[in-house]
Amino acid sequence: MSQSRPVSTCRLRAGGEPEFIEDLVATEEPLEIRVQGRSVALTMRTPGHDEELAIGFLCTEGVITGPDDVLDLDICSAANDGPGNVIDVTLRAPESVDLARLSRRVFTSSSCGLCGKATIDAVSTKYPPIPTRQSLRPTIKTLLGLPTQLHAAQATFQTTGGLHAAALFDSAANLPVVREDVGRHNAVDKVLGRLLLDRRSPADLGLVVSGRIAFEIVQKALIARVGCIAGISAPTSLAVDLAAKSGQTLVGFLRNQRANVYTGQLA
Amino acid sequence: MSQSRPVSTCRLRAGGEPEFIEDLVATEEPLEIRVQGRSVALTMRTPGHDEELAIGFLCTEGVITGPDDVLDLDICSAANDGPGNVIDVTLRAPESVDLARLSRRVFTSSSCGLCGKATIDAVSTKYPPIPTRQSLRPTIKTLLGLPTQLHAAQATFQTTGGLHAAALFDSAANLPVVREDVGRHNAVDKVLGRLLLDRRSPADLGLVVSGRIAFEIVQKALIARVGCIAGISAPTSLAVDLAAKSGQTLVGFLRNQRANVYTGQLA
Repeated sequence: MSQSRPVSTCRLRAGGEPEFIEDLVATEEPLEIRVQGRSVALTMRTPGHDEELAIGFLCTEGVITGPDDVLDLDICSAANDGPGNVIDVTLRAPESVDLARLSRRVFTSSSCGLCGKATIDAVSTKYPPIPTRQSLRPTIKTLLGLPTQLHAAQATFQTTGGLHAAALFDSAANLPVVREDVGRHNAVDKVLGRLLLDRRSPADLGLVVSGRIAFEIVQKALIARVGCIAGISAPTSLAVDLAAKSGQTLVGFLRNQRANVYTGQLA
Repeated sequence: MSQSRPVSTCRLRAGGEPEFIEDLVATEEPLEIRVQGRSVALTMRTPGHDEELAIGFLCTEGVITGPDDVLDLDICSAANDGPGNVIDVTLRAPESVDLARLSRRVFTSSSCGLCGKATIDAVSTKYPPIPTRQSLRPTIKTLLGLPTQLHAAQATFQTTGGLHAAALFDSAANLPVVREDVGRHNAVDKVLGRLLLDRRSPADLGLVVSGRIAFEIVQKALIARVGCIAGISAPTSLAVDLAAKSGQTLVGFLRNQRANVYTGQLA
């Protein structure tokens, strides 16, 4: 299935006549992720790279520790014989997995004590900080080169304006993996899923995203052991707090040959 | 709690010296929504307007039909005596509510038949189209006036760059309700929650969002019976499909004195 689809639209502008044109919009379809036949997530995503999405999601939500936990991954066929919208994951050791936590997505079970700090403490206890020697430390030049590279790689965004992008980058600002999706978390899950499926070391790679950096993006990077995160737009308070606690380098507002480094250090 | 917080950051630019400054970032904190003491959702949100968020979320996810279903809503206090991060909702008739569907967020239970069309059919069966006479039909002038109004109202975005905004608008491009949040769905839930809490008729109001329009935004508007949705950025394929089926007017790329009307009609 294509990442975009033509639709009819009426283009308006101040003082001009309405113009009927064909416009491309980003494709959005549901994907149900099942583990041992049980539905654990329904996400609205752009079709394609669904195996990466499922593996990336299950790993960065803490359900499995890596692709080796997976015995089989079955993508149902759609009516038109293309890939369908249900992925069934069979685990090697299903008894060791707590599926209930996925449904609730609650890290702490404290009554009224739920807060940003408690959330970060809970994450840190399970996922310790990334040592500096296992993190990419980019140069200013590397960082400032990322927006141009990312924009050039956003094939579908350029025609639809409707997709988020995420990518892995190396010290030379190359982007070995780039994924686009209508969902920002899905784009990150696909990229980190690819990293995990390739059994590639994350120590010399960073994650760059086309938009804002919220807590969950930093958390996903931490769980995949990616120590450097850069975004074209703003981070949130909790993203900054988690990155600081986890030894991650967090860079925001990466545009117009500028960048803000919130946590960590550059080369 | 404030909607933004100062953090230290190191500002870099090509060829310049690093500059250490204080920057404001958007506040992000977890909010747990409980129904009858049972956790049904954990969302990362910008604190404030949490009652609206809970009511808007529960209504537009189809758990309750309106604020009249709620007997009591209790916001736990935080350690510092400010509002806390847990909301407990007590229903008038808890036995009539299917909390299980919230955990899975799956509309259809078909095996491999899950697809965009099936999703839309399932939504349409439960929530019929909005008749034209119960929908705001804005003029071109109204639409083209929205971006300036919305931008002027985005108080926290202007200092942090980190918040999504949603607002209700009327035929004169006034914005009676504007909410900002780190989460795009949260901003919409807060706005629609306010609408529902005020028992105000949605027939002469539209919903405008600062970013992209995906399926779930259109679905939330449909459930709140808001017949006109406008966004500063792109819609997705499924958003266009659902709006078309539901009789909603869907406007995208609303910027630079231009707009694309994907479905429905203007005045």
